[in-house]
Amino acid sequence: MQLTGKMFIGKNTVFGLAGTIRAIDPSINQELEPVFGFATEHEVEQACQLAGQAFDTYRATSLEQRARFLESIASGILDLGPALIERAAQETGLPVARLEGERGRTVTQLRLFAKVVRDGNWLDATIDTALPERIPARPDLRLQKIALGPVAVFGASNFPLAFSVAGGDTASALAAGCPVVVKAHNAHLGTSELVAGVIQQAVADCGLPEGVFSMLIGAGSKVGQQLVSHPAIKAVGFTGSRSGGLALVHTAQQRKEPIPVYAEMSSINPVFLLPDALHAQTQLAQNFVDSLTLGAGQFCTNPGLLIAIDSDAARAFLDQAGAALQKKAAATMLTPGIYQAYVKASDKLSDIAQLNLVAKGQAAQSSCAAQAVLSVCDGAAFLNTPALQEEIFGPSSIAILCKDFAEVVQVAEALEGQLTATVHATTADHALAKKLLPVLERKAGRILFNAFPTGVEVAHAMVHGGPYPATSDSRSTSVGATAIDRFLRPVCYQGIPADLLPDALRDDNPLQLTRIMDGKMMTA
Amino acid sequence: MQLTGKMFIGKNTVFGLAGTIRAIDPSINQELEPVFGFATEHEVEQACQLAGQAFDTYRATSLEQRARFLESIASGILDLGPALIERAAQETGLPVARLEGERGRTVTQLRLFAKVVRDGNWLDATIDTALPERIPARPDLRLQKIALGPVAVFGASNFPLAFSVAGGDTASALAAGCPVVVKAHNAHLGTSELVAGVIQQAVADCGLPEGVFSMLIGAGSKVGQQLVSHPAIKAVGFTGSRSGGLALVHTAQQRKEPIPVYAEMSSINPVFLLPDALHAQTQLAQNFVDSLTLGAGQFCTNPGLLIAIDSDAARAFLDQAGAALQKKAAATMLTPGIYQAYVKASDKLSDIAQLNLVAKGQAAQSSCAAQAVLSVCDGAAFLNTPALQEEIFGPSSIAILCKDFAEVVQVAEALEGQLTATVHATTADHALAKKLLPVLERKAGRILFNAFPTGVEVAHAMVHGGPYPATSDSRSTSVGATAIDRFLRPVCYQGIPADLLPDALRDDNPLQLTRIMDGKMMTA
Repeated sequence: MQLTGKMFIGKNTVFGLAGTIRAIDPSINQELEPVFGFATEHEVEQACQLAGQAFDTYRATSLEQRARFLESIASGILDLGPALIERAAQETGLPVARLEGERGRTVTQLRLFAKVVRDGNWLDATIDTALPERIPARPDLRLQKIALGPVAVFGASNFPLAFSVAGGDTASALAAGCPVVVKAHNAHLGTSELVAGVIQQAVADCGLPEGVFSMLIGAGSKVGQQLVSHPAIKAVGFTGSRSGGLALVHTAQQRKEPIPVYAEMSSINPVFLLPDALHAQTQLAQNFVDSLTLGAGQFCTNPGLLIAIDSDAARAFLDQAGAALQKKAAATMLTPGIYQAYVKASDKLSDIAQLNLVAKGQAAQSSCAAQAVLSVCDGAAFLNTPALQEEIFGPSSIAILCKDFAEVVQVAEALEGQLTATVHATTADHALAKKLLPVLERKAGRILFNAFPTGVEVAHAMVHGGPYPATSDSRSTSVGATAIDRFLRPVCYQGIPADLLPDALRDDNPLQLTRIMDGKMMTA
Repeated sequence: MQLTGKMFIGKNTVFGLAGTIRAIDPSINQELEPVFGFATEHEVEQACQLAGQAFDTYRATSLEQRARFLESIASGILDLGPALIERAAQETGLPVARLEGERGRTVTQLRLFAKVVRDGNWLDATIDTALPERIPARPDLRLQKIALGPVAVFGASNFPLAFSVAGGDTASALAAGCPVVVKAHNAHLGTSELVAGVIQQAVADCGLPEGVFSMLIGAGSKVGQQLVSHPAIKAVGFTGSRSGGLALVHTAQQRKEPIPVYAEMSSINPVFLLPDALHAQTQLAQNFVDSLTLGAGQFCTNPGLLIAIDSDAARAFLDQAGAALQKKAAATMLTPGIYQAYVKASDKLSDIAQLNLVAKGQAAQSSCAAQAVLSVCDGAAFLNTPALQEEIFGPSSIAILCKDFAEVVQVAEALEGQLTATVHATTADHALAKKLLPVLERKAGRILFNAFPTGVEVAHAMVHGGPYPATSDSRSTSVGATAIDRFLRPVCYQGIPADLLPDALRDDNPLQLTRIMDGKMMTA
């Protein structure tokens, strides 16, 4: 599979003429072949226009057609075989096993959305029948959800497959009936080209309009800003840094027609260790360290904060965690830039006087390899130091030892919005957990018991989201079946003639949907 | 029922100390007793703090408790009897019959949300059972929606009951489990006091924490801005002008934690008259004029734009509409300010050279009475004159005569986002309607056939919303059962012990909810 360095604009492949870039192998800090070209303004314009032109045709495809399209992308990704994994490993420094797992997840995700599309529950089909005798008469009213319009998707650095070109944002947007224009992440351009080729082929094989999918490459923020500013684009999906996400939010708000931005931005994922759990669990410290260092700590759900009441058990836990951490080898980070940012943030942390080092992992043996670190401070220090809430992208965590449970609750209340909050508790801790739970519900999108937050299941009940600044829109999730809801809006049809009715709302219910009929949920 | 001029802050009534105001009877342009006091910063702070403190307790109430609370407000409003209608009529110039209808709608709305709360479908309860044998094991995942937090609601000028203190925003926010702080509209302060008293009493009667409801009064934008800026407030409901709505959106975006604003702002509600419908329907012109002048044209869904292919039939329609309009008496508008804005906008319109007058209604005989007006221009003029898309709040409409159907579609494509789009069509017009429909779906929240857009049914399938600038968030409706969704966000519980599970997610399903179990919708 020869890489070309080209972008995908509708049915064409185009070498961008606005500058060049190469992907980098972070494990040796060396550039990889081939050279890739950045999109010109004209090329961005073309991709957006094609997406706009494709919208009405694409959203009018049947549920079955759209499901098959998603499945065809899934098969195409598997058909790429080891070439995809090899390139992704080179570009990201991630182990092959992890990337194979991520490929499985990407394929599962596409197939889940195929199922979601077929089920059609997301259409929220609702019918209020006419009541002509009532005074005033009630007209016939029928509601369904429709797609928002073309979506700009930004590939994420830390999931070259599952949150990039054919990742969760793309899959859910395509499922909703939205054409997608992807801005590839420059950290894995070869991986992106391989996957984009699969989607372009699937568009052709399924007889869809070419504008359903394009993929652009761009330096810095220019292409992304143009994309988000374009009138044809009606929503944005992004996973990345807070500054990157907020820049897109700002651009989207300044448009003549503002549009929603779903930016998953930052989270430190507090883990509360309740007193009896600290006594009871022997594996807790090891499991925590494993979660902290998984994938070089480069997960949105990395456990960056531990909270416990100060006690002998808590200090014993920290000793055990420190010992476990010292055995962890340094691991290659995704890019030189991410590695440098990690080193800088770790240095900044070590300047904070109230913070003490618990332990470090093994020192780096190769380029871009992050050394894990665990620090500790007391509750008062945490409450007085906002900088301790800043996400450090990498294997760094801070333990907060509180003077009592009231201070634990105070720390919880002081937290910004989070993707996850975790509680370790035995039955003896449930009374305390019950007090903590309402606070955590207000703070996080997912609450875990007796587990660690890394590992986000692609399922119907998953929420990968949370209050600001974890995301820019707490009303949504970017993982799981309901991620499709982000790209939909309701339309009501009043008194529409039968032959003009959308299939979802026809009296004979040809899609066999569960619908709300005169206020009652009715299965087909 | 003696009015006091006081605000409602939790369980107290407080005369605001930041200045005074009186309501005005617009039909005679005279001030009404009593004097009302504006909230100080301290009083706004108090109301918001109380709302924040009440949140966890209020959202933990059972569905039955919350439904009864809403029903208790509904009964209380009816118990106010004629005093409420008399005061509302004085303050708004609206006819008694219209206000009685609006009261009925307000009560229906509260009772609908009581039913919605009891049904619990809005919880979106979803369970993915654990798969411990799978590799990797799947944890137990359970999703429900929870309330966003305290909501700031802004009373609307044009619905002193149905979109004010106990209107749709308040009802849906309370249904969701959100405390509400209302900023009363200064155009109907007495009406607001009466209704706020009912809600305060219902809070006490139902044993709810006092912070569940407060109502503030304020001059200009100061109190509103402070309210929307307050950290305890987590969402905003607003119906009013585009400038007012956008100011709140801007403030909400500038917060440390940005929050969603549901502003229903402006719409000119295009009505497409297809060729055969123009021939077939004799009552069309009269019905249009009735809709245009209903409530002095002060509906968000007022038909401000007519679009037809130029033809003898179209011109005959305009002649008939003009004749019908000339018989319409001028009607008192809601406030002197709204009347002056209408006069100014009408004058501005008459300066547009390409626009010709079709007819005017009867001239005003009393203060603040609006004279209706119908103008006409060709398609090219409309396409070249963005000012023609500006909403005129009042009984003014513009007819666009297009040279052919292609130009009709061009006009539709050029439209900004709308609350409604209407098509008049006979069966012979369906081929054309079919071409128009996808465009209108992209432009509007509700599409009507062979009716006029005024009159918004409170039902399950209603959408009173639409793309920007009709609203600030096209993904929502402010009327109908799904308005509750605006104030919710999803939370996932992973591996949560059975005794800590929310009722909606318990294995024994005590709320008898329809739930998604392992991807399948299951009735209780």
